Amino acid sequence: MAKRADAERNRDRILSVARSAFAETGGQLSMAEVARRADVGMATLYRNFPGRRELIEALYTDEVDGICAAAEATPAGAPAQTLDRWLREFAAFIASKRPLSSELLADATQTGTGAFLSGGRLRVLAAGRPLLTAAQDAGQVRADLTLEQVLDMVSAVAAIRGEPGYVRPMLDTVLAGLRG
Amino acid sequence: MAKRADAERNRDRILSVARSAFAETGGQLSMAEVARRADVGMATLYRNFPGRRELIEALYTDEVDGICAAAEATPAGAPAQTLDRWLREFAAFIASKRPLSSELLADATQTGTGAFLSGGRLRVLAAGRPLLTAAQDAGQVRADLTLEQVLDMVSAVAAIRGEPGYVRPMLDTVLAGLRG
Repeated sequence: MAKRADAERNRDRILSVARSAFAETGGQLSMAEVARRADVGMATLYRNFPGRRELIEALYTDEVDGICAAAEATPAGAPAQTLDRWLREFAAFIASKRPLSSELLADATQTGTGAFLSGGRLRVLAAGRPLLTAAQDAGQVRADLTLEQVLDMVSAVAAIRGEPGYVRPMLDTVLAGLRG
Repeated sequence: MAKRADAERNRDRILSVARSAFAETGGQLSMAEVARRADVGMATLYRNFPGRRELIEALYTDEVDGICAAAEATPAGAPAQTLDRWLREFAAFIASKRPLSSELLADATQTGTGAFLSGGRLRVLAAGRPLLTAAQDAGQVRADLTLEQVLDMVSAVAAIRGEPGYVRPMLDTVLAGLRG
């Protein structure tokens, strides 16, 4: 039991270290560097993640889980505010996972990568759809956009290169535009 | 005199044919195909444009000229409407020149390409700045965005893949957001 808890802690620490290291380095990190930063041996690292690709996929899945959980959290406030808050979390996810998804895409010839990424997209769409529907049904958000369009638009703006202070007012503009 | 007019007509026809052909083929067009479609000999084509690169640069310059001229046309209506109309032209320019600029960027190691492209950007910024300033001074457009941010945002949305009917409501949303 203590052993299983240890193993889970190791896995969590590896993922957490890898996430910030990937963000810092723009995806240039080696497995050896992940092991060093997480303070685990290479054997432990490879027991959890047989390769760099599996580690990156786990990071991606983790972030998709997070954005889906945020959509399912109990909403507080008007439907448009709930949607607004979730789209800001989604934008942060897009900005942070850029090195991850570009690495996965660069490897897209490998079997299953396309399906893997589009599986993440489908889960995010399913999680967010009730939020957009509620806001549109309440007449608080323009009705001529599908969730695919909303997410494509927020993604495009969130992925603009620049400091958070440069990108933030653009995201504010898009979200203000959603309200009509 | 007739000769010079002929030469100009040839150059214009080559550019016009090349523009639509590049848009159709996503930039896959050969010089031979341009000559064939423009109904000119290869000698005439190469006299006007020593190579494919020069032809693409001429197309790009032509479109930058167009977007600058649109900004300088006598405004009719409120400053926010003038800005809105110009940003829609800019968005169409971004959507149409995608194959051109990606080809130029792919070739960006060649001397001067970066300077060439950023020269176009500087001209567009200079042409559009009075429009944004007028709309902001009139209190018709949100004041927390620079023209660089406005153009980055419009470019990001205009470059989203999809039919015009898919992208259009996203552009409408961004432009509505600009108005506050």
